[in-house]
Amino acid sequence: MEITFLGTGGSYPTRFRNVPAIAVQVKEDLLLLDCGEGTQRQFMQSNVSFMKVKKIFITHFHGDHFLGLPGLLQTMAFNNRIDSLEIYGPEGIEKLLDGIFSLGFWKPSFKIIAKSIVPSDTLQFEGYSVSAELAEHTIPDYAYKIKEEDRRGHFDTEKCKALGIKGKDFSYLESNGFIIKNGKKILLKEVTGNSIVGKSLVYTGDTVPSDRIIKFSNNVDVLIHEASVTKDLENKANEYGHSSSSQAAEIAVKANAKQLILTHISPRYEDSTPLLEEALPIMKNTKLAEDFLVHVF
Amino acid sequence: MEITFLGTGGSYPTRFRNVPAIAVQVKEDLLLLDCGEGTQRQFMQSNVSFMKVKKIFITHFHGDHFLGLPGLLQTMAFNNRIDSLEIYGPEGIEKLLDGIFSLGFWKPSFKIIAKSIVPSDTLQFEGYSVSAELAEHTIPDYAYKIKEEDRRGHFDTEKCKALGIKGKDFSYLESNGFIIKNGKKILLKEVTGNSIVGKSLVYTGDTVPSDRIIKFSNNVDVLIHEASVTKDLENKANEYGHSSSSQAAEIAVKANAKQLILTHISPRYEDSTPLLEEALPIMKNTKLAEDFLVHVF
Repeated sequence: MEITFLGTGGSYPTRFRNVPAIAVQVKEDLLLLDCGEGTQRQFMQSNVSFMKVKKIFITHFHGDHFLGLPGLLQTMAFNNRIDSLEIYGPEGIEKLLDGIFSLGFWKPSFKIIAKSIVPSDTLQFEGYSVSAELAEHTIPDYAYKIKEEDRRGHFDTEKCKALGIKGKDFSYLESNGFIIKNGKKILLKEVTGNSIVGKSLVYTGDTVPSDRIIKFSNNVDVLIHEASVTKDLENKANEYGHSSSSQAAEIAVKANAKQLILTHISPRYEDSTPLLEEALPIMKNTKLAEDFLVHVF
Repeated sequence: MEITFLGTGGSYPTRFRNVPAIAVQVKEDLLLLDCGEGTQRQFMQSNVSFMKVKKIFITHFHGDHFLGLPGLLQTMAFNNRIDSLEIYGPEGIEKLLDGIFSLGFWKPSFKIIAKSIVPSDTLQFEGYSVSAELAEHTIPDYAYKIKEEDRRGHFDTEKCKALGIKGKDFSYLESNGFIIKNGKKILLKEVTGNSIVGKSLVYTGDTVPSDRIIKFSNNVDVLIHEASVTKDLENKANEYGHSSSSQAAEIAVKANAKQLILTHISPRYEDSTPLLEEALPIMKNTKLAEDFLVHVF
């Protein structure tokens, strides 16, 4: 997967960080997680094309997470988008889109499918799935998990050689799941190793530390957790439904996440390195997101 | 007046130009003309504070001219705005604001007064007025004129000396409009020259060349006219309710405007100098707006 951070601030933009938006290339699809105001322009300043976005997932209906939608949709239309676009979110996403369409004079020229989902849903797409879990914020907020499908293991070259499998046999096996060799049916799974586990990613949106997020993020490759503030402002942040970077790190450790990326940094920080410094002693493999950071895993 | 161009593109943003927004400092008030998506962040990158905006004037309800409103209002609230804010526009501005307030979870914490106005209205404020005229676009669009009040002329020093007016007499005259000297009542206007005409500015919003705009902009100091395209694309632009830069220049000449500033440059132009080059032979005193251009007059 390739993650491009388009907005890594929280609540409102600063000169250095725009409000939340994360583009994720998974298999053939470009997904967008949240779409704060100005996301279309952040796309223009990145290496990712907003025209290629296939599905959008909104974590919750606070302005900094969705106010970029109307402009992005209108600009897609200005650029002659034809492909339909799916927009997922908590209950109310259809109403939100209706509200957006009723602002001013504009009707979409391509199909926009708004679908609310529930935490138990797992949406199956081509080679990956997206599932949601309720985070703990002041209003309903979904954490999203993107998971690539597991793939078959590599060919066991020794075993294949011993059975006389070679050349075009491999693509035949791949296509058909078996091959007849010397009158004997050999199954693909007999000559391949353990399946390769698909990569996985969780993005929390806005949340206080949550046991549900720990469970939901179990063994995930990358956990993108909100980290609004430093330790000294933790209590106040928790009151408003947010986490400190240390709390995000504790969640990552408890979830056994392989890597943590901190985002949704409060506009109060011109220098956000203290957020990283406080998380690192707890969770070694931690990155602090910056606008336009690209993370491939 | 001091004009700060915050967004000088049209339809949708590019890496170099954001969508329309113009801040105007007139007397004690900071006004905002249009508020495209991302205007709050453009403010942050300028020398003008978004917290000081007192009144907003929206030309029309196409997304590129108003989609920055919800984010700007929310960020004002995040920054503890207390002062009320007036938002003016064509008929429907109240409904637009209602629509904005119904998006997601947010209610303004300060007073927002949305008022639709009609072309015959002239709004009188402290030391200046704002009036509107219907431009010619695909939907109702108002051009706005900001006009400082005329001020009294300078003291005629010779006459004052002859009448024995000196020292504190001047401030007395100023406050009371007259003074008694040697038993004789002398009026302020008797000892001051011709009144000084207040500066004036017209901003068109989106429009094709319009006779109403010529009349409305008569003798204006600065005409900010939309100039979406170069001459070669004029016909197409006119069809969509827009002007070429040459047409904007012709309007400025016919209106006897002292200066023309071109804005609302189509995103198709990476290099927009041809727009200026085509206008200059028609209207010598022409500028091409760029984001963050500050123009004082």
